[in-house]
Amino acid sequence: MKFDIQKLDISLEKKLQHKIDFKTKPLGSLGVLESIAIQVGCIQNVLNPKIAKPTIVVFSGDHGVVKNHPISTFPQEVTSQMVMNFLQGGAAINVFSKLNNIKLKIVDSGVNFIFPTDKNLIDAKISMGTDDYTQNSAMSIENSNLALKKGAEIVTKIYSEGCNTIGFGEMGIGNTSSAALLMSSFTGLPIDECTGKGTGHTSEGLLQKIEILKKAKSLHKAQENPIQILSNFGGFEIAMITGAFLRAAELKMTLVVDGFIVTSALLTAHAINKNVLDYCVFSHTSDEQGHQKILNYLKVNTLFNLGLRLGEGTGAALAIPILKAAIAFLNEMTSFESAAVSEKSNL
Amino acid sequence: MKFDIQKLDISLEKKLQHKIDFKTKPLGSLGVLESIAIQVGCIQNVLNPKIAKPTIVVFSGDHGVVKNHPISTFPQEVTSQMVMNFLQGGAAINVFSKLNNIKLKIVDSGVNFIFPTDKNLIDAKISMGTDDYTQNSAMSIENSNLALKKGAEIVTKIYSEGCNTIGFGEMGIGNTSSAALLMSSFTGLPIDECTGKGTGHTSEGLLQKIEILKKAKSLHKAQENPIQILSNFGGFEIAMITGAFLRAAELKMTLVVDGFIVTSALLTAHAINKNVLDYCVFSHTSDEQGHQKILNYLKVNTLFNLGLRLGEGTGAALAIPILKAAIAFLNEMTSFESAAVSEKSNL
Repeated sequence: MKFDIQKLDISLEKKLQHKIDFKTKPLGSLGVLESIAIQVGCIQNVLNPKIAKPTIVVFSGDHGVVKNHPISTFPQEVTSQMVMNFLQGGAAINVFSKLNNIKLKIVDSGVNFIFPTDKNLIDAKISMGTDDYTQNSAMSIENSNLALKKGAEIVTKIYSEGCNTIGFGEMGIGNTSSAALLMSSFTGLPIDECTGKGTGHTSEGLLQKIEILKKAKSLHKAQENPIQILSNFGGFEIAMITGAFLRAAELKMTLVVDGFIVTSALLTAHAINKNVLDYCVFSHTSDEQGHQKILNYLKVNTLFNLGLRLGEGTGAALAIPILKAAIAFLNEMTSFESAAVSEKSNL
Repeated sequence: MKFDIQKLDISLEKKLQHKIDFKTKPLGSLGVLESIAIQVGCIQNVLNPKIAKPTIVVFSGDHGVVKNHPISTFPQEVTSQMVMNFLQGGAAINVFSKLNNIKLKIVDSGVNFIFPTDKNLIDAKISMGTDDYTQNSAMSIENSNLALKKGAEIVTKIYSEGCNTIGFGEMGIGNTSSAALLMSSFTGLPIDECTGKGTGHTSEGLLQKIEILKKAKSLHKAQENPIQILSNFGGFEIAMITGAFLRAAELKMTLVVDGFIVTSALLTAHAINKNVLDYCVFSHTSDEQGHQKILNYLKVNTLFNLGLRLGEGTGAALAIPILKAAIAFLNEMTSFESAAVSEKSNL
């Protein structure tokens, strides 16, 4: 699949800055909110941008490696159980989405479970889970491309319904391991710097996970092609998020980036087309240790660090009110002139 | 005035932790949100706390020193102009309060302007501004106590209307200087470490401000009594916030602390009664350089650092959705058992 992502059009940047500088506040005093306002104004190429129908899409998939190796502290069936929990409204991402008026979509990208038909579940299942990457490629090249395409199609549909601001979440027992392998492949950092405690390994469990991932990485020939790397380590949910990022940037949506696994998908998208970064706002720094290092590699900063390591898109959901605040001050604050407030003198 | 603030009652702490640990998420994976949920649960002494009628009160006052010394880059009339801007709904705090469903109250604590009667303005004016602390005490002891009392009374009224979560903001040209003097007096740090660029000094302007404040500090005898220190440096808005903090903690409200000036008022409140800290959630780290050092002195962490340095309570307003999220997950997420999700195995 080819994605035609334009570099951010900054032709309105100065006008947006000018608009901000005449608001009734000291110059620059809204800090990062000012940068976000300018970025979103440029993305939408207007002086009064809007956050329309903010949406979070949670992609879920299973990982073959989990059946053969103790890389996760939770059993594989938790992936499907958590998808059911999302559909029933009981998970953290449901609570935060409801609280912040975010539309929530749940996708079966490749969970090892046949779900009952549910109007709230998007069926994009490619298979019952990836293959074990300690034995084979996690996904075929064909299925990797299919996952990118399905992720992109889901975004196209959401965009057509009027959404211009989107975040992605994930659920997949074992997926911090795929994320670590992708991170190591794309950044060149060694596996131990990319691997963290996931859902809650002990130090011993973490060492075991690192050993398994080191072996897994050594089994696969080093690759240049991002799709090949993605195929090696999976998973279906990560591949769909990769396609979703690329398509959303192509459509000039604002992308709200979540934590470690979602950022590993963005790293993959970035290897395919660097321009995707121009459309991203980074919500939070995860407590999963590799996340800060991917952020450093991409040379980006997040809005907050609340020690979250839950996934599901929860960090992105918590960031939406800050985005809304950035757009609201740009559109709704008065200027010095209209409020009859004196400007700064030259001290 | 005497404030009877109880140490936080932590008798429900373990039960709250237990409730959190059985939510459908890895243990500890909601990070700081979990600490907030426990803190607010303990403050309200219930397992299902609520954020009721969150309110921000902006106290405003003028500073005599501004007339004689170039400590601010804005002229004094900006205080009253900004109060009018608050009343007309055009300032940043209006925009953020509206966005996040926060009730906003504006108080004239001692502005150098006679405002027209306005149902949205609370008249608590003590005088037309403080005296110049390079010549006299900024406020008399009587007026300092009166300001504490008026701040406390305003909180009592808001509490009686059903609010249990409150933040304070401020407006007062020159008030970063009072805050720096209070900070230096209470923490023992030298004036240069407490003084920042305020609304936008140049490096040269900052040096000049530091010189003026050093002289001001040396004019006043070192004091042990917090009310005496507060009287020396003002201002009326800071004194009212001090009283407001103390009363709100006495009433077991959750206090959402804003940036540098508001935290200098909290520091004053803390010198009067240390227990006030138990009721505080610290919203943001301001870009004003002294703020991080007060936070270090109090040994507390903030939720985010967005480079804000606007005041008005804007940081507190932006933090309210995070507090709501902490309470929402505690009350609304399902448990492993009720969602039929398998728990962690022992890896």
